[in-house]
Formats: sequence, C-alpha cells, structure tokens
Amino acid sequence: MADAKARPAARIGLIGAGFMGRCHANAFRSVGGLFDLPAEPELRCLADVDEATARRSADALGFARSTGDWRRLTGDPEIDIVAITAPNALHAEMAFAAIEAGKAVYCEKPLSVDTASARSMRDAAVAAGACTMVGFAYLRNPMIRLAREIVGSGELGEVVSFRGIHAEDYMADPSTPHSFRTDPAGGGALTDLGSHVTSIARYLLGPIAAVNGTTATIHPRRPEAGGSNATRPVEVDDRAVFLAEFESGVTGATEANWAAAGRKMQLAFEVAGTRGSLAFTQERMNELLLYPAEGAAGRRGFTRIEAGPEHPPYANFCPAPGHQLGFNELKVIEAAELIEAWAGGPPAHPDFEEAYQVQRVIGAVQQSAAERRWVEPASL
Amino acid sequence: MADAKARPAARIGLIGAGFMGRCHANAFRSVGGLFDLPAEPELRCLADVDEATARRSADALGFARSTGDWRRLTGDPEIDIVAITAPNALHAEMAFAAIEAGKAVYCEKPLSVDTASARSMRDAAVAAGACTMVGFAYLRNPMIRLAREIVGSGELGEVVSFRGIHAEDYMADPSTPHSFRTDPAGGGALTDLGSHVTSIARYLLGPIAAVNGTTATIHPRRPEAGGSNATRPVEVDDRAVFLAEFESGVTGATEANWAAAGRKMQLAFEVAGTRGSLAFTQERMNELLLYPAEGAAGRRGFTRIEAGPEHPPYANFCPAPGHQLGFNELKVIEAAELIEAWAGGPPAHPDFEEAYQVQRVIGAVQQSAAERRWVEPASL
Amino acid sequence: MADAKARPAARIGLIGAGFMGRCHANAFRSVGGLFDLPAEPELRCLADVDEATARRSADALGFARSTGDWRRLTGDPEIDIVAITAPNALHAEMAFAAIEAGKAVYCEKPLSVDTASARSMRDAAVAAGACTMVGFAYLRNPMIRLAREIVGSGELGEVVSFRGIHAEDYMADPSTPHSFRTDPAGGGALTDLGSHVTSIARYLLGPIAAVNGTTATIHPRRPEAGGSNATRPVEVDDRAVFLAEFESGVTGATEANWAAAGRKMQLAFEVAGTRGSLAFTQERMNELLLYPAEGAAGRRGFTRIEAGPEHPPYANFCPAPGHQLGFNELKVIEAAELIEAWAGGPPAHPDFEEAYQVQRVIGAVQQSAAERRWVEPASL
Amino acid sequence: MADAKARPAARIGLIGAGFMGRCHANAFRSVGGLFDLPAEPELRCLADVDEATARRSADALGFARSTGDWRRLTGDPEIDIVAITAPNALHAEMAFAAIEAGKAVYCEKPLSVDTASARSMRDAAVAAGACTMVGFAYLRNPMIRLAREIVGSGELGEVVSFRGIHAEDYMADPSTPHSFRTDPAGGGALTDLGSHVTSIARYLLGPIAAVNGTTATIHPRRPEAGGSNATRPVEVDDRAVFLAEFESGVTGATEANWAAAGRKMQLAFEVAGTRGSLAFTQERMNELLLYPAEGAAGRRGFTRIEAGPEHPPYANFCPAPGHQLGFNELKVIEAAELIEAWAGGPPAHPDFEEAYQVQRVIGAVQQSAAERRWVEPASL
Repeated sequence: MADAKARPAARIGLIGAGFMGRCHANAFRSVGGLFDLPAEPELRCLADVDEATARRSADALGFARSTGDWRRLTGDPEIDIVAITAPNALHAEMAFAAIEAGKAVYCEKPLSVDTASARSMRDAAVAAGACTMVGFAYLRNPMIRLAREIVGSGELGEVVSFRGIHAEDYMADPSTPHSFRTDPAGGGALTDLGSHVTSIARYLLGPIAAVNGTTATIHPRRPEAGGSNATRPVEVDDRAVFLAEFESGVTGATEANWAAAGRKMQLAFEVAGTRGSLAFTQERMNELLLYPAEGAAGRRGFTRIEAGPEHPPYANFCPAPGHQLGFNELKVIEAAELIEAWAGGPPAHPDFEEAYQVQRVIGAVQQSAAERRWVEPASL
Repeated sequence: MADAKARPAARIGLIGAGFMGRCHANAFRSVGGLFDLPAEPELRCLADVDEATARRSADALGFARSTGDWRRLTGDPEIDIVAITAPNALHAEMAFAAIEAGKAVYCEKPLSVDTASARSMRDAAVAAGACTMVGFAYLRNPMIRLAREIVGSGELGEVVSFRGIHAEDYMADPSTPHSFRTDPAGGGALTDLGSHVTSIARYLLGPIAAVNGTTATIHPRRPEAGGSNATRPVEVDDRAVFLAEFESGVTGATEANWAAAGRKMQLAFEVAGTRGSLAFTQERMNELLLYPAEGAAGRRGFTRIEAGPEHPPYANFCPAPGHQLGFNELKVIEAAELIEAWAGGPPAHPDFEEAYQVQRVIGAVQQSAAERRWVEPASL
Repeated sequence: MADAKARPAARIGLIGAGFMGRCHANAFRSVGGLFDLPAEPELRCLADVDEATARRSADALGFARSTGDWRRLTGDPEIDIVAITAPNALHAEMAFAAIEAGKAVYCEKPLSVDTASARSMRDAAVAAGACTMVGFAYLRNPMIRLAREIVGSGELGEVVSFRGIHAEDYMADPSTPHSFRTDPAGGGALTDLGSHVTSIARYLLGPIAAVNGTTATIHPRRPEAGGSNATRPVEVDDRAVFLAEFESGVTGATEANWAAAGRKMQLAFEVAGTRGSLAFTQERMNELLLYPAEGAAGRRGFTRIEAGPEHPPYANFCPAPGHQLGFNELKVIEAAELIEAWAGGPPAHPDFEEAYQVQRVIGAVQQSAAERRWVEPASL
Repeated sequence: MADAKARPAARIGLIGAGFMGRCHANAFRSVGGLFDLPAEPELRCLADVDEATARRSADALGFARSTGDWRRLTGDPEIDIVAITAPNALHAEMAFAAIEAGKAVYCEKPLSVDTASARSMRDAAVAAGACTMVGFAYLRNPMIRLAREIVGSGELGEVVSFRGIHAEDYMADPSTPHSFRTDPAGGGALTDLGSHVTSIARYLLGPIAAVNGTTATIHPRRPEAGGSNATRPVEVDDRAVFLAEFESGVTGATEANWAAAGRKMQLAFEVAGTRGSLAFTQERMNELLLYPAEGAAGRRGFTRIEAGPEHPPYANFCPAPGHQLGFNELKVIEAAELIEAWAGGPPAHPDFEEAYQVQRVIGAVQQSAAERRWVEPASL
C-alpha cells in the first residue's frame, strides 16, 4: 500500500454555530475532496457567544477546539482564515480584529448594517491588503455563472430590461419573534434578501446608478425573542420594492419580501436583451431558461438548460448532467474560491469592495423610501 | 319535426376588421349557443376605413352588410350595439357618435389615448345612461374571476403585496414598423399592455392611490409603416416599470413591456396575503396557483387549480374540467355579459367609468416618469 | 352600404345534445367566420332520444328544427352532413342509415363498440364512397400537427421510443353511476381514452404491429344510473396499460385510465429519436417541448414552443402567438376539415378507415389482457 | 479554549475511484458534520485496478493509503467497512471477500449481474450476519421518503395504479463506446436504470408478482472502449418497457431507457389511489406533487410540496425550506444510515436481501422479453 500525500493546511476559525456556521463547516469539510486545492482546510476553532454551544458544535462539526470568546479566535496565530457568521451588527468589529491580526476574512452577507460601517470594513481590508470574501452564495450557482457568461458574451444582444425578486415567507407569520433579523440596526427584508438579489443584479448587469423604492412593515409588532408573550414594535421593513436604473441605461423593478406566503426560495430574475432572454428562479436552481431570438420560425421558445458538467464548476461535483447541486454545495464552491484566493490565486469575488457597493444600493433604497425620491447609491 | 323558437335579435355593428374585429365577430357568432341569452346577436354591419376590406371581411365573418364609412354604421337605426375595434385615437369620436345615436357601446381597450378624452367618454356615457363595456378580455378568464373571489373571500387573509407583469415581444424587433401602437397620441407599451395589468390590479385589489414609474424607449427608430425603408423616431415607450400604492395600503411593482424577447403572453401576477398567496400567468391561462398557509406541516405548497366547471362561466363551454378555454373564448364571455347588460341585466363591467380609472393610472405613470416623482391618479 | 355575399350552405343534422353535441353545434356556428370555407354550415336539425331535450337544445344551440327520432334526421333530404354524438353502441346503426341516405357522416369517437361493427362501418363507407370523419379532436391541436411534422421531417432522426398516457379522473369516484361509458358493449377506459392516445400514436408513428396489455376494474360496483341507491357490477375496465410494438420497430408503453385521481387531462406522450425528442401533455395543450440533440454544448435543453401563427391552423384563430386555443376550437378545426372534404377537398382524416384501425388496436389489447399474451391488431 | 471530543472511527475502504467512488468519498468526508453519528468515518484506503489512479485519487479524496489490489483492502484488519464501486461484474467477488473478512459491505447498485450471483451474495451476507447496504441513492431523497410515508399512511386511499420511468440519454449517441455498462454480463439500460425505478416501485408499493416486458437495442454497434475506431456489436438493451403486477393487485407500466435524447434524469413516477395521487420526477428532486381528492370544490389540485425541514432528514442539511438538496447529499444520507447500522443501529435498507429482490425483477423482465410471456420474479 502507498501512503497518500498531505496538502498544506488552511486553518479555519469559524465564528457562529447557527445555520450559516454549519454551512461553512460542511463546506470546509468536503471542499478538499471535490476541488484540487492548494491547501486543505483544517477546522481549527469554533467560537460562539455561548460557550456550551460552541463546545457542542465543535464536537458535532469536527472543530479541534472551541471558545466562547471570539477575540481569542481572531487573535489565535494558528488560524489563517476567519469565517464570520455572527449577527450582522457584529460583522464589522470581528472583521476589523481579524484583518488587524492578518487573517483572511470570509464574512456572511450582508457585509454590515449600514453603508458607513461597510465602507470602513472595505477601507480596512484594502489598507491591509487582506484577502476577503462575502458569502453571497447564490452567485456560486453554476446556472448564475452561466447567466453571466451568456450576458457577457453578447448572446442576448444588448440587455434592455431586468426584473429581480427575492421572496420567502420565513417572517410571514406575525407570531415569529424578533431576532437579529428585525434589529433596527441592520435588519429587514431589504437588507437580508434585497442584498442577494442586488448582488445578482450587479453580477449580471453591472453598477446601479439610481434607485427609487418603497418599503412596508407588514406586521407592526412581533413577540420578544425567547418565548415571551410580550410584543414590541417592528422597526424594519418586511418588504421593499424598488426601481433601479443601471449605469448601462437598463431599468428594472426589484422586490425583497420575507412575508410572501408560500414562497420558500423565490430568488428569481428575468433579463431581456435585443436578441434573447434569460429567466431563472432559485426554486429550480439547477435550471436556466434561455430564449434565443433566432432559429427556425415555429421552433423557438425558452430552452430549459439543466445544469451539467459543461457548466463550471458542476463537474467538480458530478460528471453526469441532471444530478443537481443543492444549496450547501454553493457554499462548497465559495469555500474553494476562498482557499484559492487565500493561497495566492485570483482575488475572491465578491470581496468587501463589492459587498460595500451592494450595501450602498440597499442604503440608497432605504433613503429613497424615506424621502420618496430617486437616490443615487454613489451619493451615500 | 318541431321548429325552433327564435330569440329577439341584438343587432351588432362592428367597426374595424383587424385582430380584435375578428375576435368580436367570432364571439358574437358563437355566444348564443353557449350562453342562455335574452337576445341573439345578429351581425348587421361591418365598417372599415377601407371599403374593400370591409366588404371582404363582411363576407368572411358573416355580416349582412359593410361600409367604408363608420358614421353610416353609428347612425344606422337598425343597429343596437356598436363595437369599436379601430385604432385607439379614434375611439372617442366613434363612441360619442354611437352614444349620441342611443347605441350601446362595446369599445376595445385602452378606452382612449389620454386621460382627458377618456374622461369625456365616461361623462358622455353617464349623461346618456348608455350601456358601455370595454374589452379588457383577460378579466373574463374564469381563473381571474376565481382569483378575485379568493381575494374577496378573505381566504388569503389581509393582502400585503402585489406584483404584476405584462410582457410580450411583438415589438422586440427594431425592424417592426410603426403602426397605431407607436402613435405618439396614445401608443406605447404602457398604454397597450400596462392598461391590461392595471385593470387586473384594480379588479383584484381596488383603487391605486399613487404611482412612481420610469419608461424606456428601447428602439429609438422604426421603419415607416407600409414597407418603406425610411425610419422615423419612436416617441412612445417600449417598456415601463412602476411602483404602485393601492388605497388599501398594499404596494407593488408592475411592468409593461412589448420588447421582452421570448415572452408571448406573460400577463402575470402574484398576490400575497397574511394567510395565503395566489400566482397566475396567462401563459398558462387555465391554471391558478393557490397557497393556503394552513394544513398539515409538510403537506403545504402551491396548489395548481385547473379550470373546470366549478369556475364560472367555464361550464358554459364544457362540462368537464381540464379541457381548457382559449383567448377567443374570453371574448365570448365578454360578449355574453354585454348582451345581458344591453338587454337590461346587471351593468357590464368594466364600463367606461372603470376604463377611465385605468387610464388615469396610465396617465399618472407617464407623468411620474416625466417628472421623476410619485403622482396620484386622482390628481389627473 | 354593401350587402354581403352568401356562401352555399352545408346543412347539418346533429344527433345527440350532450357534451359532444354542444361542441359540434358550437363548432358549426363559428367555423365559417374563422376559416375560408367553400360552404357555410347551417344548423338544420337536432335529434335527441328525448324529444323535449331535443327541442330545448335546438332552441339553445340555434338549430332550425328538432326531432325525437333520429331516423327522421338521417332520412331528411335537406340534410347534407350527419353528425353522430350518441352513445357508442348506437354509432353503427346511425352511420349505416346516414350512409345509405347519401350523407356525409361525422361520428364521435370511438367509431364503434367492437372491431366487427367498426369494420362494417368502414366497409359501408368505402362501398358508398361516403365522406366520413371521426372526432379524435386532439389530433387537431396545432401542437400535435407540429409534432407530426417534426417526426416526419426527420428532425428527431430515427424514432426509437414512445410513451403515451391518457389519464383523467372522471370515474375515480366509486359513487359515480353507470352510464353508456360503463356499458359492457363498448365501454371502459381503454375504449374511451385509450382510443385517443392510440390515435395519436398512429398519427405520429404509424401502424402498431402487436400489443400486450392488462386491464383492471378498480371499482367493481357502481350505482345504477338515475339516482338509484342500488349498485350493479362494473364489467368494463377502469384502467389499462399495454406495450405496443409499432411496425417501424419502435416499442412503447401506453396507459388509459379514467380513475387517476387529480388528472383532468393528462393526454401525454414522449417520443425520442436518435437526434432529438418531443414531449407533450394536453394539460398544457398550447405548448410542445422539443429537444434537438445539437447546438452548442451547455446550451441544449427542451425548448418550450408556444403555439402561434407559424403552427397551422392557429393563425385562423389569432394572428398573435401565445393567446392560446381551447378544446372547443379543436372541434372547430375538425369542422373546417369536414366541410372542406364534404365540398370536394382532400379526404377528411381520421376517416372510418383510420378509426377502424384504432378500434382494432383496442380490441387487440382487450384480447391480449384476456389471454395474457401478445396479440396483433391485424389478426382481428 | 476547549478541545473537542473525538468520536470513535469507522474505518472505510473504498474500491473504485470513478463517479461513484468520488461520491462515496465525499459522503464519508461530510456525513459526520451533518448527522449525529456514533462513529466518524475515517478514509483509510482506496483501491483501484490502476495503481497510479488509486494513488492520485487517494491524494485528491483524502484517503490515507492506496492500493492497486483490492484484495489487500478487503483483507486489511484496520478496515471496518468496504465500499464497492467497481464494475457490476466484480461486485460479487469483492463482496464475498469482504464478508468473509467480517467487514460491513456497502455495494453500489445493481447488486450483481444476474439473479444467481445476487442470490449468492444475499446468502453469504445472511449466513455471516453481515451489515450490508446497496446504493440505491434515490431512495434517500426526503421527497421519496415522504412519498412512502404518504402511501403508507393511507392518505391516498387504496393505491390503484403505478407508472415508473427512468430515462436518461448518456448512451443516446451511437459513438459512445462500450464500457462495463454494455458488458453482456450484467449491463444494459434495464439493469442500470431499471433497477433504480424498480427499487422505488418496491419501496412504495411492495413486491412485484409478475412482469411482462420487451427490450430493444437501439444502437446495434458501438466503438470499442479506448478510442479505437473499430466497433463491435452491442449485446445488451438500450431500452426496456415492462408491465408489472404487484402482489397488492396494482398494475403499472415501467420504462428504462438510456437513449432518451434530452432526458438527463427523468426518474419519475406517478401513483394514483382512490383518495389521491402522487407525482414525482428526480428532474425536480426537491418537489413532490400531492393531489388530495378532498377539500373545497374549485380549490383542488396538485400541491407542489417543496422539501423542507419537515421532511427528514432534510433538516440535517438545512433548517430552512426551499434551499434544496443535491444528488451528492443523497449519498451522504446513505452513508449516515450505513454508519448507524454498522454501529448497531437499525439494519440498513436496502440491504443485499432487498437488492436481490430487485435483481429478480430485472431478471424476470429479461426472461419475459426473451420468451414473450409473463414471468414471476419469484420463479427465478
């Protein structure tokens, strides 16, 4: 028998053991077997605000150590990459500490709770030359990458319209209690979901020059967190709709809604060009609809492209088409790009700069809704 | 053998022998065998601006007579109902003449080319006590009627959001020449298609208090009509997107687009309420998706309701579900309601009043786009 | 004003005022305005076994006269075309009388209740040189016609497989009483629905050389017709599945089922060839899915073709794509082909000969199920 | 900081580094972070017939050692579980060796190349009391588990019909060369894909009493493996269709096809009962369609259930609905059940016994096709 060669380690410190923390852990566990990486992630330490949770989660997820104090993690010299999955309001402080300690930073979206702090994070990263990545996982979908390739190739001709939606229903029930999501500092459907669809809009069509939106708080009160019967007012939006004018001249309407009864993952868009169109919904994340405005009369229509090995990096997961990727595998792709960037490959995307630009759009929509006028993200 | 009893006649005069003129003719031919009507439509006269066309079409469609002068038709004492399918800019003049002559008026949408003329038409109809109907045919779809019933019954709880689209691609090709559709007086995608989706929005959710939109002319020049190589500028929109605030407080985003490559009939909406949701597209016009936010956990989802005899007036066409109606049959339903209203039944809907309200919304969006601000339809 | 020219009349006698009778009447009323026909159908007489029903229906549908004795209709010299929509067991007798009287015969499907009587009908029609047509309406769908065109053109390469289904649920409830559909002479799901899918299979792929099937009676007893509480045994199948070997060598599996809970119109097929595939369901009757096994890698997929004016005879109903036809309009197309054939145009299809061949397939499946072996339709 | 607790190891030896080998490796890498298992898989050794491939793959997938001789792996006392992903014809020999050495055996499907060898494998496993599992991965889909739960609960009433399909197109191109899949000993579409749909049929509806099928070789010759221009005959089927009679009395039609142009993963079924129906396709593997034949008239329809945490074990992967699992995660679920069974939990399913029963059905279809008659799997 032959012994296998070991790759160098990329030592991971993960902050947060919730939904996204588990996703990150899973991604780091499996990415090395799927991608030919310059380094193998090593699950070094897990931090959670609750020490017992941290310990249990470290055991469950396979981290070597745990801590209840995230500063011990960001300060640990044996950690290379800090992954931040804590509530949005904590991202900035954690990122500053990690950058200062010379770590690469992999931060969950949205980057921060407002434009100012996002700008500071971006500035700190740039100043330090830090490797950064922000977890807009849907951008990793091979079908979204294909959409960008199709738009960029000119197959659609000149793009003339955009429509974007991110609607789910996890806050549709007024008895769902407050959480960090409804925190006035940085919560709301626009921030939580609108940032996703904005990141896709920018990925496909480029910068947004101006926005005009309106927001609504559908459920004015929710119970306190923790099982209390008491309620308190909701100060964030449950839903936002906004018009967008891209720098290219394209206009579009966009919606963010976390109270859309029945919608579990309607992250959808439609892009029309002078020579064709694209339509997509994450509800059927392994399919992309492409309409080429050419071909024999009577034979045209939207073609349902199913994800397959022709659509990178699908082939890293499966050599046969139609087998489908799931959400967790988008995070695996994210982890692969991160490791490559950290090891000296091409810069990760979206980095803090890009995530800051997304945040500006969100901020501009908020200002637009408050002032009932068009607002330019670049003015924030 | 027994001889059949004849019903009294409702004598029809039709202006225009194009797409909609043929639809009207077909509807009047068949409606009497499908609905138990107080009168049988009789195809008395067809007018078209081109006399030869009028004659040929009268022969083809089964009208007894034809004329190249529509005023002879509106003035004919042997005509009861005047159906107007001429270009939008002519609607007002024709309707005035017909109303003055005491006829019922069945006018294609949009009612007119601007808010002022639409108001005059509404005023004339009200003053004369005329029976009027405007051809927003999609409202006749049993699935849309079902949607209204579901919204009205409270099955969705309180409605919280709306999204509407009417996108087609019949003007997507820049070589498609000018026509009445691109006439600066009353043309454009917003007028042509936006009026449909607005009529549905109002039918389901009631009046719209304010709008904020933007319009775009995608193809700045088109060939002259009639095969010329010369082009001239397009002065109307190819596409409009607008935010709407309903009087009920609901907000929504709406799109009208006649240059959406690949879309043939994307007249679609989604309505979310606190207890459920509806989704519909005319692309699958015999289906309505209903999500009830109740029932056993793990068994919930959007239910695809297929049109059947439980959905009036489907049963007039077929006793068995799933057989499907087509677009032309929506016009048959329209004709049935018109004949009933003309014969003294309940007033037709949408009448000139309702169509005027739709026109105000369209006008408000145009003003909003020009002035880049929110505009109230009621202010027009 | 100019008076219109009248076309010669094609005088229609209709037997049966049920579901299909109404469809025929509607088709004859409207077809003349939609197709450029050599003759205009005239609704001359309606016969129903119940004289009062006949009279009421004649009034409602617009027939000039009515009778309770169909022999007066088939013998009426002022009738040109006899349309038979009576229960299956009566088709033969009526057709014989009509053919003998020199009429054209338009008979609902299935042609008859067994192979022997179907053969007699075919023989009588051939001997008399009668113009005949059988109402396999789904064949009239422009999308099915397109499918045949695609198969015939070789776009799919050599066809290698077929799968056909016709599943509905109108007999799924065991409390649905007996009717002509459950009559041991000629009833059953295989006869009622299996004949439709067989007609499509033959239309697309040609003759069937051998079948091997099994049938099931899901509900062994049903109530007597007419509201009685008494039940009696069901002697026909509720469901049949059979393998088919086409003369071309293609094999396929086919299902007929009238107890398929939830299915309202699952008349569906899938045809694969060496260079492409087709998939269709009447549930979305205005769409055809086409997969061409060519084109750029990563861009292939099933293309959803929506019915439009490129797909004859869609343009007779509407000049714009995406507006959709309904089931009743398939009967209008059928009526148009019938009138043209009667007036000396190309022979109608499917005629009695073709319907007899379908009946042989059904008979062969029945024999196959009884004897548990492969049976050749040609042997019946 | 706290050090994490280590779980005991389940030492894995994997034979085969192809598509399925990589799937197994990925599953074993990630399962421990997703399921609360009694043991953590440890990637001990990878064997492949080509030693260099084995070495490279061990490095890439994270195995500690590699070998070109699978007998060294099955004989290694430091291995607990042997995973077999070698060509079908080798399964038996490898399984015998592993069972003899006291290992648990995780074998890819189909269990073997014929009924006789599958029976021997089953017998060996039973005699040794071995823990066995066979990789019918699609059974792990939470939606399939839900389907079984729904059928078992009686929600559909008495099941009356089944239709099953497994169609792909990876062998549709005649220039695709020979491989183990076309090996006369154990290859063919029926064996490769028919075994999947049969495993689902049995999982949902129980044992199959009799089958009657026909097979076809669409492409009679294929190139030799290895890039040669020479071709040799294909001795296995490209496609099979068969009727099945379940012991319960239900009948159904089933298709296996690896030359279905355009189909990438049409593993689909439809089950109808007296009170409802289910429809599924792996093309949309995170959805199950359920029709309950109850509820308000006019509101019924197929409900599209999207996979979520109510559908075990979805919640192990994600706490939020709609995020979707992919194919690889079905293998993770498989690995979890295997580890639990190996560690003394409930026996794995499907084990060698179940896979042998599937093989008997496949064998019976082959015999049926050869002899053109109904064959009982129990007779083999």
